[in-house]
Amino acid sequence: MRIDGRASNQMRPVKITRNYIKHAEGSCLIEVGDTKVICTATLEDRVPPFMRNGGKGWVTAEYSMIPRATETRNPREAARGKVSGRTMEIQRLIGRALRSVVHLEGMGERTIWIDCDVIQADGGTRTASITGSFVAMVEAMNKLVQSGTWKQLPLRDFLAATSVGIIEEEALLDLNYKEDSSAKVDMNVVMTGQGKFVELQGTGEESPFSGEQLQTLLALAQKGVNELIAIQKEVLADIPLDFGRAANETVNADA
Amino acid sequence: MRIDGRASNQMRPVKITRNYIKHAEGSCLIEVGDTKVICTATLEDRVPPFMRNGGKGWVTAEYSMIPRATETRNPREAARGKVSGRTMEIQRLIGRALRSVVHLEGMGERTIWIDCDVIQADGGTRTASITGSFVAMVEAMNKLVQSGTWKQLPLRDFLAATSVGIIEEEALLDLNYKEDSSAKVDMNVVMTGQGKFVELQGTGEESPFSGEQLQTLLALAQKGVNELIAIQKEVLADIPLDFGRAANETVNADA
Amino acid sequence: MRIDGRASNQMRPVKITRNYIKHAEGSCLIEVGDTKVICTATLEDRVPPFMRNGGKGWVTAEYSMIPRATETRNPREAARGKVSGRTMEIQRLIGRALRSVVHLEGMGERTIWIDCDVIQADGGTRTASITGSFVAMVEAMNKLVQSGTWKQLPLRDFLAATSVGIIEEEALLDLNYKEDSSAKVDMNVVMTGQGKFVELQGTGEESPFSGEQLQTLLALAQKGVNELIAIQKEVLADIPLDFGRAANETVNADA
Amino acid sequence: MRIDGRASNQMRPVKITRNYIKHAEGSCLIEVGDTKVICTATLEDRVPPFMRNGGKGWVTAEYSMIPRATETRNPREAARGKVSGRTMEIQRLIGRALRSVVHLEGMGERTIWIDCDVIQADGGTRTASITGSFVAMVEAMNKLVQSGTWKQLPLRDFLAATSVGIIEEEALLDLNYKEDSSAKVDMNVVMTGQGKFVELQGTGEESPFSGEQLQTLLALAQKGVNELIAIQKEVLADIPLDFGRAANETVNADA
Amino acid sequence: MRIDGRASNQMRPVKITRNYIKHAEGSCLIEVGDTKVICTATLEDRVPPFMRNGGKGWVTAEYSMIPRATETRNPREAARGKVSGRTMEIQRLIGRALRSVVHLEGMGERTIWIDCDVIQADGGTRTASITGSFVAMVEAMNKLVQSGTWKQLPLRDFLAATSVGIIEEEALLDLNYKEDSSAKVDMNVVMTGQGKFVELQGTGEESPFSGEQLQTLLALAQKGVNELIAIQKEVLADIPLDFGRAANETVNADA
Amino acid sequence: MRIDGRASNQMRPVKITRNYIKHAEGSCLIEVGDTKVICTATLEDRVPPFMRNGGKGWVTAEYSMIPRATETRNPREAARGKVSGRTMEIQRLIGRALRSVVHLEGMGERTIWIDCDVIQADGGTRTASITGSFVAMVEAMNKLVQSGTWKQLPLRDFLAATSVGIIEEEALLDLNYKEDSSAKVDMNVVMTGQGKFVELQGTGEESPFSGEQLQTLLALAQKGVNELIAIQKEVLADIPLDFGRAANETVNADA
Repeated sequence: MRIDGRASNQMRPVKITRNYIKHAEGSCLIEVGDTKVICTATLEDRVPPFMRNGGKGWVTAEYSMIPRATETRNPREAARGKVSGRTMEIQRLIGRALRSVVHLEGMGERTIWIDCDVIQADGGTRTASITGSFVAMVEAMNKLVQSGTWKQLPLRDFLAATSVGIIEEEALLDLNYKEDSSAKVDMNVVMTGQGKFVELQGTGEESPFSGEQLQTLLALAQKGVNELIAIQKEVLADIPLDFGRAANETVNADA
Repeated sequence: MRIDGRASNQMRPVKITRNYIKHAEGSCLIEVGDTKVICTATLEDRVPPFMRNGGKGWVTAEYSMIPRATETRNPREAARGKVSGRTMEIQRLIGRALRSVVHLEGMGERTIWIDCDVIQADGGTRTASITGSFVAMVEAMNKLVQSGTWKQLPLRDFLAATSVGIIEEEALLDLNYKEDSSAKVDMNVVMTGQGKFVELQGTGEESPFSGEQLQTLLALAQKGVNELIAIQKEVLADIPLDFGRAANETVNADA
Repeated sequence: MRIDGRASNQMRPVKITRNYIKHAEGSCLIEVGDTKVICTATLEDRVPPFMRNGGKGWVTAEYSMIPRATETRNPREAARGKVSGRTMEIQRLIGRALRSVVHLEGMGERTIWIDCDVIQADGGTRTASITGSFVAMVEAMNKLVQSGTWKQLPLRDFLAATSVGIIEEEALLDLNYKEDSSAKVDMNVVMTGQGKFVELQGTGEESPFSGEQLQTLLALAQKGVNELIAIQKEVLADIPLDFGRAANETVNADA
Repeated sequence: MRIDGRASNQMRPVKITRNYIKHAEGSCLIEVGDTKVICTATLEDRVPPFMRNGGKGWVTAEYSMIPRATETRNPREAARGKVSGRTMEIQRLIGRALRSVVHLEGMGERTIWIDCDVIQADGGTRTASITGSFVAMVEAMNKLVQSGTWKQLPLRDFLAATSVGIIEEEALLDLNYKEDSSAKVDMNVVMTGQGKFVELQGTGEESPFSGEQLQTLLALAQKGVNELIAIQKEVLADIPLDFGRAANETVNADA
Repeated sequence: MRIDGRASNQMRPVKITRNYIKHAEGSCLIEVGDTKVICTATLEDRVPPFMRNGGKGWVTAEYSMIPRATETRNPREAARGKVSGRTMEIQRLIGRALRSVVHLEGMGERTIWIDCDVIQADGGTRTASITGSFVAMVEAMNKLVQSGTWKQLPLRDFLAATSVGIIEEEALLDLNYKEDSSAKVDMNVVMTGQGKFVELQGTGEESPFSGEQLQTLLALAQKGVNELIAIQKEVLADIPLDFGRAANETVNADA
Repeated sequence: MRIDGRASNQMRPVKITRNYIKHAEGSCLIEVGDTKVICTATLEDRVPPFMRNGGKGWVTAEYSMIPRATETRNPREAARGKVSGRTMEIQRLIGRALRSVVHLEGMGERTIWIDCDVIQADGGTRTASITGSFVAMVEAMNKLVQSGTWKQLPLRDFLAATSVGIIEEEALLDLNYKEDSSAKVDMNVVMTGQGKFVELQGTGEESPFSGEQLQTLLALAQKGVNELIAIQKEVLADIPLDFGRAANETVNADA
């Protein structure tokens, strides 16, 4: 049994509160155990310079933690004058993951800015950020459908992420901070509603892992992602999300 | 009548939720109308280099907004690589205000780090930050009393802050964002439980103000601060806060 | 009696030397006791990006000290790669103060850049900067009148600033550095020729102050500002400065 | 057939020139097709602050490209004043990968700095950097054995890396730049001499991939890494590298 | 005799390998003894903002060393977030020197970016960079002649540089690192094919030098530059470089 | 005749006002025509980290211009967050030049910080900075002699600098800004009281120069430096400056 009493293949309780920040076009608070992340989605009517006049849209993400999200205080990146390598890696990952299920060609020249602000951290902040950002992004996209700008959501599929790892030879789902610190192998898995892989980042810095171990971990991750997507479906029940066609074709969202 | 239906001398609803972030020694969420700030207090067993070996303690503050706390998205200061002048002014103000009611000499060589993270902004974020930080600071100080490190709180008095301003010749208490934008005179007032001024920052950039107007504004501010301190007393009821003696003498908190 | 022999309500000797830097459109050296600041005003035929196409002008200020303006050497902000919070606060204050007496609507899309460079510091550098900058700004504005670009100065009123404070229960006018360091209450006051307040920044970090004390300090400040404006009038005697109408109406300076 | 005539499971020609930079304790030029990277290893007799007094060693890496390593000129990161997110991700990856095969506990408080400078880029620069850095690191470690400071190399296993990807439904080994640009799935795989995974970073930003596809890619990567390790063994033939025992036990290298 | 056996007026062996980096329009590896510099030239079809619409071209240079080019590791300037004063001086020198022999008026609005990356340093890296950059620049210019964009090279003359210095009262040509460190006088000399001076930078920080000593040093430098230009002529033999007319008149290269 | 009526070998009027900034250990205002520089010297009782425990002293310099020292406003380097290449070159030059006449071994572990702040610029700011800094440095050194810390000045010789250049084939002494802008050859020369060269920086970016032209320029520079040193001797007449012995031997200044 794990330190918090869970079975090895059991997720922590997950809660997604939509419409959490009043100014944002889309927003939620996602809680995965004691990990809490505010995700907001902002619509902008233009794309970054490197994409101008390409006719496509863009989705980009930023990530931060408040200083006392963690057990000891982390100096602010703004005060240090630069964003850490860890933060850059995470925000690049979140952006890439979300773009994988978006029809950028169908967005017109618009940007969706995702902001993930961790207010309490207990492991899995990057995967919770991805799962929550998907909800905030859908909420923001739906604003454009409601206003008649878009006739449908330029989306291909659901998207969620979780972490898996190996501690003392046992494969575990959804590591909390204590577990994460003692795991010898650690893997973040981002998957779609169809069960395909979008990102796979496995690290065995302290102990390389075999092909067999990899299979076990991926199966656990699949189980976790399925549960997360079920929760996403529930909290997004008011927004029509039928990816039968959209998942395979290019969708032009412009009305 | 004001845009949100308040009387000119009426505060917005205020709510302080203590113990909001599990890792911090002290923390709260303060809500003043739609303005929401997470305040945390962190204890550190040393002081900054410029104070080493002086036998005194220090209180310092940092302030930030999540990008979508505001109506339009604000780029992160970490991404721009520097802290704006506005942020610096605010965090210097918060630190100075809190120090005014703390017996630094009685703290030993310890630092209290205050972090104010605005998750939703609707005017008055700096004054809400001061009012909330006081609560988080007391909660953190009390941890040291409970652990026996201190025998009493090294505190002189309560401390709270509000804003006042003049719109179309009328003096108003506790401006929300819309009001703040159209105010010709704007003043932030930080006061103690004894009704003394700690900080007074009045600006008539668009319209200089007379001595009389100043008196009206200060009276309004006094009313607002009294109400805020009443709320602080309520939420801190479990912590003994009797400033009879401490407000006038130097208190050595070390047990 | 004070350390330099002054009465409590007595200013230090003040001297303003106009036309001090040959390249600038406006410039002066202001000396307030041993505090010496070079103020220059630069005219630019455009406004910052956030004001483009608004038809209004802008006044902005920057402030710096040479490293050895102070008793011990201060590292250059350029060498440290960033401007300190103190500097930002001061330059924001100077800009805001000057704008309060300028008809921005009457300037056309022009910017006046104010630069305040402290070459010797002995307390009150920010208030001396404001008082001197007003003179440099008027000199520069007058260039545009002389060249026929403007038909009058887009100005509402005179503007000057001084500091007041409380030391050992006594209220003092125009603190020098030694006094400033030992003052428990410290206030900077910016006022117009009509005796109205433009900025009021009072801090009782080491000792909160009462409403009565505030009144005493404001009266002292009023006396000091009156004397400063008398000196401004004298050194600007060649430039017509009649604010009878301009102080209350919008003036369009464009010829 | 691929654009450069290779079979889908064929590596580009690989050449490793040892002892390439005379000042460095270890160095090589690794050429993988037209990708050329100078790898150096520097020994330092102390560890970074966060590891002091822990009795362990450290391996860290930095990565850069000369501006014209690529088809169009890339501005220098030094000139822009900050390291890009891509660079940070790569250097964190290289360091993590190398540490996975080093007995940090056996190094004493020493740091090995790895520098990877890409002088010509044609895809796969990060995997070439890992493969080349291993050689430079072994060369540097051997200096300490030769000087009698260490009695054996604190190493667990060989280490090499390659990339695999999917283009038009076909899985390919060792993508060059053109291929990399058009791949819908892209994976970097770092493996040990024993065939275990150290890092797995797969991205299907443009097209999620199935579990089956993953298996095919991993098999290709295994083939490539085997070939790279064979080359490493050849160029390092003069240095005794027998990991029979070291791969499974903690080795203390200090003589 | 010198530490490496050379006569006082003898250069180290010099080797220039053209076309060293495949992507660049011009490139070479220059080796002067153990000093090795990769020089690349990049053509860009526009000029920097300060030169727009002037009808002239521009040549600019950047310089860097890989961290282990030197005996001890130099931290990367990108990691430190700023370019050192030494680097700035060197890249300004290289750009200025190259521009002295280019008909900027004849280039059209084009920029040539020179990048000098030192991969191994043993004294004289800035002079080797100038000598090598000239070759890379000519190679890149020739691309525009071959493509018919230019009808001739907009060049006035050859250009090369070397260092001279005084050690123990003896004047020496082409100092290596050890010599450079112990030289009391140190001078970099950039000259044209016609034997004229383009740059002269002499420093006697540890021992001022007389007019006579200066003459001796300049004569030595002239000898070195003559030898370098002979080598440039040889490696550029395939490109027509006849400066009879061009050296004295303005040449318009545009076809 | 030159634009300001001078002969080709004539300096502009030079004036040095000692003891210009009251806080500094040494200071002066140097005026060379319309160029005005405040030079201060600060004594510090320690050396930079790279010189600790070497028993020697250090002299270092910083240089800046106020924004409106020039005809058009120059943005502050502090605001841009970095020091320009030009500034770095100049401050490195000033420091190197001053050190050439100081017995660093005789200073003990002390640093002299030189600050040159240009308040009005009309060409020759770097050479005026060197000439003025020498005076400020001597004044500061003399403080240590007067206080009994040193028994003599650790100085070898006088030091001054001027610029020379070629305009329309004529060699000119002490170029003002207009002349400097149109000069095809431009040279800064730093010399000692004994007529030796300390720094020689000649640039013929727009027109390479011959050996003969160099001789003419050096003779002009010698004349100018002689005049500057005569002025230094006059303004420093109260400080004993006899370099008979000190110029050739190492002097230990410690009492």
